[in-house]
Amino acid sequence: MIPEISTVIIEDIYPEIDGGRYLVKRTIGDTFRVEADIFSHGHDVVKAVFQIRKQGEKDWTEIEMTPLKNDRWEGSYVLTENATYEYTFFAWRDPFLSWAEELEKKHKAEQDITSELLEGKKFLQEIIEKAEKRDALFLKKMLSFFDKELEPFHTTEDLLKLAEEIEKKLKNDKPVEFQLKKMKELLQELVQEKRVIKPSQDPVREIILGDELKNIMMKYPDRSDCGKYNRILKVFVNRREAEYASWYEMWHRSQGTVKGKSATFDDMINRVSAIHDMGFDVIYLPPVHPVGITNRKGPNNSLICPPGSPGSSFAIGGPDGGHMALNPEFGMFEDFKRLIDECKKYNMEIALDLALQTSPDHPWVTEHPEWFYHRPDNTIKFAENPPKKYEDIYPLNFNTTDKEGLWMEIRKVVRFWMDKGVRIFRVDNPHTKPVHFWGWLIEDIHSTDPDIIFLSEAFTRPRMMKALAKAGFTQSYTYFTWRNFKYELEEYFTELTQSDVSEYMLGNLFTNTPDILPVVLQNAPPPAFRMRAVLAATLSSSWGIYNGFELCEGIPKPGTEEYLHSEKYEYKVWDWDRPGNIKNFIGKLNRIRKNNPALQKYKNLRFYKADNDNILFYAKYSENLANIILVAVNLDPYKKQESIINVPIKELNIKPDETFQVIDLITDQGFYWKGEKNFISLDPEKEPAHILLVKKWAYKEHDFDYYY
Amino acid sequence: MIPEISTVIIEDIYPEIDGGRYLVKRTIGDTFRVEADIFSHGHDVVKAVFQIRKQGEKDWTEIEMTPLKNDRWEGSYVLTENATYEYTFFAWRDPFLSWAEELEKKHKAEQDITSELLEGKKFLQEIIEKAEKRDALFLKKMLSFFDKELEPFHTTEDLLKLAEEIEKKLKNDKPVEFQLKKMKELLQELVQEKRVIKPSQDPVREIILGDELKNIMMKYPDRSDCGKYNRILKVFVNRREAEYASWYEMWHRSQGTVKGKSATFDDMINRVSAIHDMGFDVIYLPPVHPVGITNRKGPNNSLICPPGSPGSSFAIGGPDGGHMALNPEFGMFEDFKRLIDECKKYNMEIALDLALQTSPDHPWVTEHPEWFYHRPDNTIKFAENPPKKYEDIYPLNFNTTDKEGLWMEIRKVVRFWMDKGVRIFRVDNPHTKPVHFWGWLIEDIHSTDPDIIFLSEAFTRPRMMKALAKAGFTQSYTYFTWRNFKYELEEYFTELTQSDVSEYMLGNLFTNTPDILPVVLQNAPPPAFRMRAVLAATLSSSWGIYNGFELCEGIPKPGTEEYLHSEKYEYKVWDWDRPGNIKNFIGKLNRIRKNNPALQKYKNLRFYKADNDNILFYAKYSENLANIILVAVNLDPYKKQESIINVPIKELNIKPDETFQVIDLITDQGFYWKGEKNFISLDPEKEPAHILLVKKWAYKEHDFDYYY
Repeated sequence: MIPEISTVIIEDIYPEIDGGRYLVKRTIGDTFRVEADIFSHGHDVVKAVFQIRKQGEKDWTEIEMTPLKNDRWEGSYVLTENATYEYTFFAWRDPFLSWAEELEKKHKAEQDITSELLEGKKFLQEIIEKAEKRDALFLKKMLSFFDKELEPFHTTEDLLKLAEEIEKKLKNDKPVEFQLKKMKELLQELVQEKRVIKPSQDPVREIILGDELKNIMMKYPDRSDCGKYNRILKVFVNRREAEYASWYEMWHRSQGTVKGKSATFDDMINRVSAIHDMGFDVIYLPPVHPVGITNRKGPNNSLICPPGSPGSSFAIGGPDGGHMALNPEFGMFEDFKRLIDECKKYNMEIALDLALQTSPDHPWVTEHPEWFYHRPDNTIKFAENPPKKYEDIYPLNFNTTDKEGLWMEIRKVVRFWMDKGVRIFRVDNPHTKPVHFWGWLIEDIHSTDPDIIFLSEAFTRPRMMKALAKAGFTQSYTYFTWRNFKYELEEYFTELTQSDVSEYMLGNLFTNTPDILPVVLQNAPPPAFRMRAVLAATLSSSWGIYNGFELCEGIPKPGTEEYLHSEKYEYKVWDWDRPGNIKNFIGKLNRIRKNNPALQKYKNLRFYKADNDNILFYAKYSENLANIILVAVNLDPYKKQESIINVPIKELNIKPDETFQVIDLITDQGFYWKGEKNFISLDPEKEPAHILLVKKWAYKEHDFDYYY
Repeated sequence: MIPEISTVIIEDIYPEIDGGRYLVKRTIGDTFRVEADIFSHGHDVVKAVFQIRKQGEKDWTEIEMTPLKNDRWEGSYVLTENATYEYTFFAWRDPFLSWAEELEKKHKAEQDITSELLEGKKFLQEIIEKAEKRDALFLKKMLSFFDKELEPFHTTEDLLKLAEEIEKKLKNDKPVEFQLKKMKELLQELVQEKRVIKPSQDPVREIILGDELKNIMMKYPDRSDCGKYNRILKVFVNRREAEYASWYEMWHRSQGTVKGKSATFDDMINRVSAIHDMGFDVIYLPPVHPVGITNRKGPNNSLICPPGSPGSSFAIGGPDGGHMALNPEFGMFEDFKRLIDECKKYNMEIALDLALQTSPDHPWVTEHPEWFYHRPDNTIKFAENPPKKYEDIYPLNFNTTDKEGLWMEIRKVVRFWMDKGVRIFRVDNPHTKPVHFWGWLIEDIHSTDPDIIFLSEAFTRPRMMKALAKAGFTQSYTYFTWRNFKYELEEYFTELTQSDVSEYMLGNLFTNTPDILPVVLQNAPPPAFRMRAVLAATLSSSWGIYNGFELCEGIPKPGTEEYLHSEKYEYKVWDWDRPGNIKNFIGKLNRIRKNNPALQKYKNLRFYKADNDNILFYAKYSENLANIILVAVNLDPYKKQESIINVPIKELNIKPDETFQVIDLITDQGFYWKGEKNFISLDPEKEPAHILLVKKWAYKEHDFDYYY
C-alpha cells in the first residue's frame, strides 16, 4: 500500500527529447553537458550524480553534478567513442553532510554541539568498519578529536566576558550580584569536574568542521535516502564527418567526355582529384543500379524516350538486377572498388543513394509482387501524386503482408553496400516511407556499425523533417535554398541551431540539387553563386553543391526551379574548366573551413546586428574562444551594400576600448577594429562576403627581448 | 525482429506535464482543449481522435480532432464530473478518404478513373457486409452509380471539341486528317461497343465524389493502418470551489469577547454571519487540537510561558489527545459540528489545518517513539533550523522504519476529519515532508473523495512549490505578499497563469497570514489594504485574508514581517467594528467576484500596457466575451496616479471607432471610452483601483418600437 519512498526529485532533464522517446545526438570529442532540477524537502544536503555508460555495458560511470542556482544542477562528460551511450541521474540526501552543515551553523551561532558530536562519532564509527585502511586510520584519529571536543569546557572568553561586564557595571554603579554568581558557578564547575579551559579559537573544532573529514567521508556516502531519475536516456555519438564535411553531388554518368555516352567508374575516378582540389570530403552518387526499360523517361522527364536515352537513375532495376547490382554502363564491382579506393587516397568518401522504389523491370516485381500496390485488375500501380504520374516507377508497400520479407531485404541491401565500402547513404524521399521503418533500420545498422551516416533527402513539412531526424537520420536536407532574405535566414537558422531541434537534427546545406535550381541562381551572375556558397559553407558545418554549381550553371526549365536538360534524364558532357567558374573560390572556402575549428561545429552559430537589412552578420567561435570567425554576407548579389555591424565584444572577451585585428580569409585583407560598432562594405563585384578571423592584439613592447 | 508497425506519429501533446508523470488539473464545467502533432508519411489522408474516459471505466469516449495548421490538431471535451479522467490519442491513415481524395484530384485533372472506381466498389462492398441496414441500402444504391460510371463513355464535349477544331482548321486551310480520323474512331467505338454519350457535367460522378458517401463510410472506418499515443495521460477535475473561493483565515481562539480567555466554537459560530456578510466562502481554522505543555511558548514566541498562556496551536497534542482530538477550550465534537452546520447555512465551508508535527506531549510520542528523530542519548529531537529552535515541537520522521504505521495513521487523521465534515485542508509546511508522501496521500484521498481540497502552505523555492502542486495539491500559497511593483507582479502572474505552471498549480492569493504582515501593510493607511485586497481578489480566482486585515491591523514586531503580539501565542479580543475598517469594501469586492464569472476563472488573466509604472492594468474575460472585466490598480497607496492605458479592443471585438461603456463596479461610476488608448486617474484617498465592467453600446434607434 505504501510506495517505495523516493525523497529526492529529479526532473526537467536537459537534454531529453519528447520524454526520452528519442536519442539526442552528439559528435565524438564533444563535451556532453547535462542539466536537471534536483531538490528535496526540508533542509538536508543533497548530492547528485549524472550516470553514463556505453550501451551494453553494465556499470555506470558517475559524474558529480554541481548546483547552479534555483535547484538547477549541471554535469558534463567528454564523449570519446562513436557509439550509443545511456545516461541517467541519481541523487541523495547525504546524512553526513547534512550533519556537518548543521554542526557548522550551530558552531557559528555558538550553540551547544554535544549531541551533534555524539552523532558525528556514530557516522565515523560506521565508516571505519568498511573504509580502506588509510581512511580508517584517519577517521580513528578524527574520532579522538571528537572525544577531546566532547570533554566539557568553558572558554576563557566566557570568564573574560563576565569580568568585563562586572567592570562596566561597577563603573556605572550598577548591581553585579548576578554576574558574580554566574562566575562563581563556572569556576566551581571547573574545579569540581576538572574541566578544561579552552581558547575561543578552537583548532580541534576547526579540524572537525574541515573539508578533509568531509572528503574522506564522501568516499563512503550513505545513499539510502535517495531519488533516481525514472528513465534511462540515450545519446548517439557520431563520428566527426557526420557533423563536419563538404559534399559534392556528382551526376555519375555526366562525368565523361564522349557526347551521348555514359561516363564509367573510370571517368569518375579521373574526376576525384579535381573535386578534392575544391576541398570536398564526400562525393555523392545517385543510384548506380541498372535502370528500367518499361516506360523509361526521355529528356526533360518526357513520356517519349528516344532510343539511347539512359532513363532516370531512380527507376531502379532491370534485366541486369536491382538494388544490389551495378548499372553495366559504369563498370563492374572491381571498378566501383577502385573508385572507393581512389577517394580513400584523398581521405574522401563515397555517399550512395538509397532510393527505395523500383522500375517495372526490377527483379522484386516478379519475385515479390506482394511488396507492391495492386490495382483491382491485379496489375501493379506506378507512383502517382495526382495529378502527377511517375509511370517508370513502382513504389514499395512497406505495410505489405510480407513486411518481414521486404524490410529484411532492404536491410540486406544496405549491408551489401556497407560491405562494398559505402559508409554514407543519402536516402531518397524518406518521408514517403513510414518513419518507424527508418527508426528500425537505422537502429539496426547502428547497433553494429555506428559510423554509418544517413542523410535524409526530405523537403517536406517541418514536423516530418524533424520526425525523420528523431527516428535516427544523421543529417537532413533543409529549406536553405528557399531562404534568401535576412529575417528568414536568421529565423530559420536560429531554430535549426539554437532550439531543441539541434539536439537531434543536423542540417546539411546544399546550394542546389539535381532537382533544385533556386531562383536566386537562375541565370544569375557568379556573385550570386559565391554568396550562396559562403552562406551554405559557414551557416552549417556541413554543406554541399551539386555539380554544375562550380560552373555557375543557372539555366532553368522555364517557369520551374528545375534545370533545363536535367542530367536525371540524359547524358551530358561538361567542360569542367568553363570560363566564369568559381572552383578556386570554392576551394578557398573549404580550406577556410578546414583551418578553422569554429566552422566545423554546428550549434555555435550566433546572429548579430547589422544595420543594413541586405547584410547578414553572424559569428561562430569555439567554446574556449581559441578560434573566432565573424561572417558578413551581402545578400544582394547585384549591388554594393554597406553597414554598421555590432561585434559581440563582450562574448568574445574583448574590452570596449581594445583594438583588435580581423583578417578576411577570402582576400587576406586585414582590418583594425575597435569596440562594438564597426563598418563594412561589401561589393559583389569584388567579394560578396567577409569571412573574418578575429585576432586579439598579441604583442606589446614588453613581449620582446629588447625591452629588458 | 520487425517491430509492430505504427504509421502515424502522435507527439508534442498539450497538455502533458513532464512526459505524463503528473496529472493536469481542470475544474468542473471546463472545456478541456487538447492539441497534438499528428502526421504520417506520404500523401494518405490522416484522421485523428482524442480518447477520454473516467478513470476506472473501460470504454473510451472518442472526440474527432480537427487539423489546425502545420500538422497540429486540436480537440475538446466538456468535463462534467469531479473525478480523474484519462485521455490519449489515436490516429489512422484512412484508406477510403485517401482513395476519395485521389479520385477527386484525378477527376479535376480529367484523368481516367476506371481503376479508382473499381477500387471504390471494393471499399463499398466490404462495408455493406457489416453496415447497419439503412447504410447498407444507401451503399448498395451508390454501388449502382459506380457501375453506371464504369460504363465506358465519351462525353458529347469530346466530339464537339473535335468538330470545332476541324471547323477552325478548315477556315485556316490547315489539314484535318488527324482530327477526322480521331472522330471516326470515337464514333466507331460508340457503334461497336454500344457506349453511352454523357454530358460533361456528370451528376453521377458528383454523387460519387460527394460528402454523403464519405459520411456514411466514416461510420465504418478502417483503422488498421494507424498510430496510437504511447501514454495514457490524466486530468484531475476539481469541484468549482477549488478554483473560485474567497477565504477568511480565522484565529479561532481570538473570536471571543473575554480578555485572556479562549473563544469557543460558539463564539466562532457567532462570527460566521459577519464573515458571510464580507462575502467569504471558506473559513480556515488553525489546528483545533490540544496544545502541548512541555516547552510551551509564551507571547511573541518567548521561551518563558506565563501561566495561562495558551501556547502555539501548532504544538499539537497533550493529555487530551493528538491530531484526532479537539482542544477542550473550544468545546466538544457536537459543538464543532454545529460550527460546520452554521457555515453550511451560508453555503460556507470550514478548512482545517493539517500540521504534521507534535508537541512533546502528543500520544504518538509514547505510543510510537520510532516515528520521531532521536538523539544519540535516545531522547527525541525537537524541531530546529539552526540557529532557530522550536523547543515545543517534534518533527515526524517520514522515513521511519515504521513508515507503514505512520503514513497510515496520517491517512486515518485526514479521513477522520473528512468524516466530521471537513472537505478542505490547509496543509502546514508541506515542503518539509517528502513530496512523494503527499503524492501518495492525496491520490489515496482523491480516489474515494475527489472533492477534497488541499491547500499547500509553502513559501519555499520555486521548484519545490511546483513539485508540491504536481504531487497533487489543489492550491498553493504564492509569493504574492512579496510582489509589490508592476514589473514583478506582471512577470510573476504571467508565469503563474499563462505558462505550463497553470496546468497544475493554482495560486490562492492571501493579503496576509498569521505569520506574514507584509511591509506594504505595516503601519499603512487603509488605501494600502484596499489596494492589496483588489489585487488579490482579481489577479486570482481564489484569494483570502487573515483576520485583522479587514480592520487594517498593521503593527509589526519591529524589524520583522510578523505581527506584534501574534495570536499564535496569546489570547486576543478584537473589536470587529473598529473605526477605519474596510469590511464594506471587502464585501463589495467579493460581491463583484460573485457577479462576474470572468473573475471566477484563474487562467484568463492578461496584462496590458499602462504608461504609468505605478498603475497595473489587466483584463479578465470569459471565453465567449459574455463578461469582460478590466482592472486598473494604483500600486502607490500614497499618491494619485494617472495613466493612459491600452484597452485590448481587438481581443474584445470592439471596433477602433466604437464607443463603449465601462462601469466601475466599486463606485458604480460609468465612463464612455473609445479606441485603444484611454485615460484613468486613481486617487488612493478615494479608490485605489477601478474594476471596470465593459459594456458594448447596446442600443440604437432601430432597437425600439417607435422606430418602426
